[in-house]
Amino acid sequence: MDEAVRLDSGGTLVEGVMAAIRQRITARSLTPGARLPSIRAFAKSMQVSKSTVVEAYERLAAEGAIRSRPGSGFYAAGALAPLSLAEIGPRLDRAVDPLWVSRQSLEAGDEVLKPGCGWLPASWMPQAGLRRALRTVARAEDVALADYGTPLGLPPLRQLLARRMAGHGIEATPDQIMLTESGTQAIDLLCRFLIEPGDTVLVDDPCYFNFHALLRAHRAKVVSVPYTPSGPDIELFAQALAEHGPRLYITNSGIHNPTGAILSPVTAHRLLKLADQSDLTIVEDDIFADFEHIPAPRLAAFDGLSRVVQIGSFSKTLSASVRCGFIAAPRDWIEGLTDLKIATTFGGGRLAAELVLMLLKDGSYRKHMDLLRARLSRAMGETSARLKAIGITPWIEQPAGLFLWCTLPEGVDAAETARRALADNIVLAPGNAFSLSRSASRFLRFNIAQCADERIFKVLETVMAR
Amino acid sequence: MDEAVRLDSGGTLVEGVMAAIRQRITARSLTPGARLPSIRAFAKSMQVSKSTVVEAYERLAAEGAIRSRPGSGFYAAGALAPLSLAEIGPRLDRAVDPLWVSRQSLEAGDEVLKPGCGWLPASWMPQAGLRRALRTVARAEDVALADYGTPLGLPPLRQLLARRMAGHGIEATPDQIMLTESGTQAIDLLCRFLIEPGDTVLVDDPCYFNFHALLRAHRAKVVSVPYTPSGPDIELFAQALAEHGPRLYITNSGIHNPTGAILSPVTAHRLLKLADQSDLTIVEDDIFADFEHIPAPRLAAFDGLSRVVQIGSFSKTLSASVRCGFIAAPRDWIEGLTDLKIATTFGGGRLAAELVLMLLKDGSYRKHMDLLRARLSRAMGETSARLKAIGITPWIEQPAGLFLWCTLPEGVDAAETARRALADNIVLAPGNAFSLSRSASRFLRFNIAQCADERIFKVLETVMAR
Repeated sequence: MDEAVRLDSGGTLVEGVMAAIRQRITARSLTPGARLPSIRAFAKSMQVSKSTVVEAYERLAAEGAIRSRPGSGFYAAGALAPLSLAEIGPRLDRAVDPLWVSRQSLEAGDEVLKPGCGWLPASWMPQAGLRRALRTVARAEDVALADYGTPLGLPPLRQLLARRMAGHGIEATPDQIMLTESGTQAIDLLCRFLIEPGDTVLVDDPCYFNFHALLRAHRAKVVSVPYTPSGPDIELFAQALAEHGPRLYITNSGIHNPTGAILSPVTAHRLLKLADQSDLTIVEDDIFADFEHIPAPRLAAFDGLSRVVQIGSFSKTLSASVRCGFIAAPRDWIEGLTDLKIATTFGGGRLAAELVLMLLKDGSYRKHMDLLRARLSRAMGETSARLKAIGITPWIEQPAGLFLWCTLPEGVDAAETARRALADNIVLAPGNAFSLSRSASRFLRFNIAQCADERIFKVLETVMAR
Repeated sequence: MDEAVRLDSGGTLVEGVMAAIRQRITARSLTPGARLPSIRAFAKSMQVSKSTVVEAYERLAAEGAIRSRPGSGFYAAGALAPLSLAEIGPRLDRAVDPLWVSRQSLEAGDEVLKPGCGWLPASWMPQAGLRRALRTVARAEDVALADYGTPLGLPPLRQLLARRMAGHGIEATPDQIMLTESGTQAIDLLCRFLIEPGDTVLVDDPCYFNFHALLRAHRAKVVSVPYTPSGPDIELFAQALAEHGPRLYITNSGIHNPTGAILSPVTAHRLLKLADQSDLTIVEDDIFADFEHIPAPRLAAFDGLSRVVQIGSFSKTLSASVRCGFIAAPRDWIEGLTDLKIATTFGGGRLAAELVLMLLKDGSYRKHMDLLRARLSRAMGETSARLKAIGITPWIEQPAGLFLWCTLPEGVDAAETARRALADNIVLAPGNAFSLSRSASRFLRFNIAQCADERIFKVLETVMAR
């Protein structure tokens, strides 16, 4: 049998069976939703025992590559939305589920180290500024403390955001900017506004894992394009446009999550040309903009907010406790977006907007970001060196940001490593949580600001050696 | 012609034509989406001039009963979701659109009086307590100011909410309670969790207008059941269950919005029996609970949170600027709801939860509510008397809450009155914004806390006399 050959590749029998199934999924001889061969039949065709196939199927199910339905066997997972949203339900044994990293990070107690999470330690945030802003807002006028925000959100904050965007070459008037409760809510609103269930959405491979969870909640069909160090692979991007006719593309063009890559001007230009030709709308999630040392090209700047909409937030730089995000959109979308915001959340949180405005206005945000960039630079060098010392290699030399996207030593599985590290109270971010094609099983994303504790590297070394 | 007879009923010719079209919609000889007769043909069949039909159609379109499509005539509106969410787009001339009242109220400047809005004046909120809580939170630990909330939300606040619910006879453990950014977001999450596009949802007629906008965003089919002073008309409720097989019923059972009616124990019991028989899930929106003098029966208490889920918030009683709502749900829904919350909003706003917790814990909320109930009682009596003096009659004697649901004098149209009052900087809430069947064209909802200014009654008198 052809498939039995793969068992020579140095892995265990179980890994061989897993590889054979993965290969069928990649080659689409097993399409999403298709039933896998029965355990008995596959054991026979692979010339292995039934228990080997059982273990391989269970590990693939734990990775999320296949799904088990009690009493009816195993099915190939895939880009399609699940039948029911309840299926999103977390299973702690399902390490590469897009929600696994979120839940482990958000639910972790103080005793847990979180190199896999996506935010800064609270002590790295502008605590003095936040405390001062709270005392100041305690003296604000009654309506600031008790009333709903206006539908678009606090006008002086939108004016200030418009000026900041102009600094990135993006021309947006304050009435093209709508405040939201968070960056995630901004993307969620845009998806509600732009796509119907069953529409195809393009994402990067890898991309921020919550895009997968969010698009699943929207019942979108998701197609991914490999991300290179200078942006999406433009040939494959063109091919995906032609094959799948997506309605939307969601990406980060500043500092890309999880890779830290930066979009090159030539890729940006080609991307927009392709988008124009196939009437593709682009959501540019720019929440890492303020971490940059040298500003990268922005799709929204090249495009002039006509088919590119930009979103941002202050959760990564100011506070995730004070929720405030925003959308800068083509002018004729704003009315519809506003109605949708009212229908689904009513007024926005005026208090959060007042606090963000104070910190932006009094200069403390700018000073905080200057210090933060320097601190992250140092942490980037240190974490990178520590990781290399234990055989974990950064994919590219990261110029800025929070993340190091790293390859594990040959034969080490990231999902398995993450599961084992969790038992030692360390939350890691395994590559396949970010990868629709599940082709990042040897990658981990490290948050350099959460890597100060030496224990992280010791546990990594130990669990990788097992 | 049969239809010409209707012109005898005392109204103008235009009103006669409008009544004829409404009757066809009610009798479903014009189903949602069906094209109306051409102006020429209908003028002939009604024996009126074409300009009379034009005016009637335009007024029906302004009410939202029909829609115009430029160049292709008029179509019956209805319970179905619009083809595109962009159609929700506001038109300031569309007085009974469910979003009209929200937008006018939220966008109004200081010069505008808002007897139509759904919240208290900022000065009625516990300003001293809010300011004290802000100063206290300014001294909280770092994570309170900067970190994401846990997925379910601040544990001590959930414990306190569980105890408060126990006081209303609702048994919920803290891990059955999930915090949200608002009551609206709570309902939105539940809709995402429970319904698919095209599912049928039951609402009261009249009901809170934003339910219509929200359900439209979910592409649900909406069916309404007339609300009586003791709850939904139980015969028609049973009939709607049999005819439409709804998945969900959304209601307020404490103080009903907009009518102020209170669910009677016997109706509650019958309702739950019917729900059991047809496997109906109920969302009980209980955001007005703390305004009650005598607690009404709660569906969630009778049902034990098995098919009834309850939502609440502090936007009406504490602050709409500090956003904090919650869901109390059957235990086995919580995992799925949490994943959905993370996917669509990531962590919750911890700061808002901390502030609410402080106000609930230090006793200032209880004292504030005692004073507020007394103040509202007085305002209820005063507003009711003022309205009666100008011929506007409360539907029932309201025992508590913010709202008076009132009938206008015969021949006075609420939508037209609201449009005229807006020109005088007064935002009213016309009845048909609350009524799916658009059978409340002679009703207005008054917010008694926003009726202190004598100008409101003067303008009402003037515009009604026009």
